[in-house]
Amino acid sequence: MRYAVFGTGVVGRTLAARLAGLGHDVVVGTRDPEHTLARAEADDRGNAPFAQWLAEHPSISLDTFDAAAAGAETLVNTTAGGVTLEVLAAVAPAHLDGKVLIDIANPLDFSKGFPPSLEPVNTDSLGEQVQRAHPALRVVKTLNTMNCAIMVDPARVEGDHTVFLSGDDADAKKSVTELLTSFGWQDRNILDLGGIETARGTEMLLPIWLRIMGSAGHADFNFHIQGV
Amino acid sequence: MRYAVFGTGVVGRTLAARLAGLGHDVVVGTRDPEHTLARAEADDRGNAPFAQWLAEHPSISLDTFDAAAAGAETLVNTTAGGVTLEVLAAVAPAHLDGKVLIDIANPLDFSKGFPPSLEPVNTDSLGEQVQRAHPALRVVKTLNTMNCAIMVDPARVEGDHTVFLSGDDADAKKSVTELLTSFGWQDRNILDLGGIETARGTEMLLPIWLRIMGSAGHADFNFHIQGV
Repeated sequence: MRYAVFGTGVVGRTLAARLAGLGHDVVVGTRDPEHTLARAEADDRGNAPFAQWLAEHPSISLDTFDAAAAGAETLVNTTAGGVTLEVLAAVAPAHLDGKVLIDIANPLDFSKGFPPSLEPVNTDSLGEQVQRAHPALRVVKTLNTMNCAIMVDPARVEGDHTVFLSGDDADAKKSVTELLTSFGWQDRNILDLGGIETARGTEMLLPIWLRIMGSAGHADFNFHIQGV
Repeated sequence: MRYAVFGTGVVGRTLAARLAGLGHDVVVGTRDPEHTLARAEADDRGNAPFAQWLAEHPSISLDTFDAAAAGAETLVNTTAGGVTLEVLAAVAPAHLDGKVLIDIANPLDFSKGFPPSLEPVNTDSLGEQVQRAHPALRVVKTLNTMNCAIMVDPARVEGDHTVFLSGDDADAKKSVTELLTSFGWQDRNILDLGGIETARGTEMLLPIWLRIMGSAGHADFNFHIQGV
C-alpha cells in the first residue's frame, strides 16, 4: 500500500517508520520540504533534525502535502490538530477524493498553558471537522488516545488494552482494522464506537491522558475498556 | 460514619443502600421530602417511586438537603450536575464546613439532545466549581466514570479496572480511599490523579462512556488504565 504520512514530528516519524518496516511505500508530507530539511537543530522535545531521521530511513521520501497525497492510496494525519484543516486545504481535492484518511491528530490548545485544553470540544471534534470539510475523504479517527510508540507496538503495554475506531465508512474502518492488526493489535482490543461523531469521545480522553501521564510519570500506559 | 447522600435517583439509592449495608448511618437529602414521598409513579427510567424504595430500606431516612447535611460527617453528591451548585447553596454553610464531599455528579447537558454534552467542560469542571463555591468543603471527585452498580460492587466487572480520585485535600482522599476499599476496590485500581483540577479529565470521560455503552449495548464495563 502507498501511504502519505502528514507531519514530520515524532508521531509522523513513528508511523512512517513502522509502515515502511511493514513493506509499504511511504512518503512524508510537509508544508515546505526544503525548509523541513534545512533545520539543523533538534526540536524543543529533543528529537533529531528531520533530515537526520530521513537519512536513517532511506526507503522513505519527503514531499509537499499535496504531492505526497497525490501518489498515496491512504493518508495518515499526524499534524498538530490546530493546523490540520489548513494542511488539508492545501491539498488538491482530486488528491483526496475517495481516499481513507487515518486521523491521529488531537485538537490540543496550548494557548492557555499546560496541560492544554481542546478546541473544538464537546459539541464538535477535529475528526468531524475534517470529515465535514472534505466529504470525499473517508475519515477514520483512531490511535489518538495513546503515545505513538504504543500505536505501532501495542505489546509495549502488558495485557489487553484498547484502540478505538470512529468513522462513517465501514469499508474504510475495515481497512484500518487490517492495518492495526498488522501493527500487532488483537481483534478483541479494537473497539468500533460508530460514526465519526464518536471522535468527540476519543478526543476528550486527552485531558485525562495528560493527567495520568503526570501522575504516573511516564507515557507507557493505555486505556482498556474492561467488560465489553 | 454518618453519611448524607444528596439525590434520590438510582445513583443516590445505590450508594445509600450500600453505605447502610456496611453499617453506616445514612440520610438521603432531597429538596422537599414530602414531595419526594408523594410521587406514586415510577420515574422515566422505570425506577420505583422513592417511597417504595425507602420502605424497603428501613434503616435509611429522608430529609432536606440542609437537615441531612447537618447530621452527617461525610456528604455524597449524586444530584444531576446541572443542579448541584443550587442544591449546595441551599445548605447552611455551617453544615458543610470542614466536611468531605464525595462528588459523583457529572455536568451532563441534555439541552441539545442525546448523547448529552458537558457544561462546564474543558477549561473548568463541576468538581472545581463545587470546590470554588464552598472552600470549606473538602471535595473529592470519584466514581463518576462508571455505572452506579459497579461503583459499589467493582467485582461486577471481571478483572482489574480503575476508579479515579481528584481532590486538593490529602486526608479527604485517604478517607475516601478507605471507603472505596470497603466497597471492594483494590488499592492497585484506585488512581489518584492529583488536585481537584484533574476532575476535568474524569468528567470528560463521559462522552466516550456514553458511546461505548451505545456500542456495547450495556453499562457493565469500566475504564482500566493498563501499564500504570
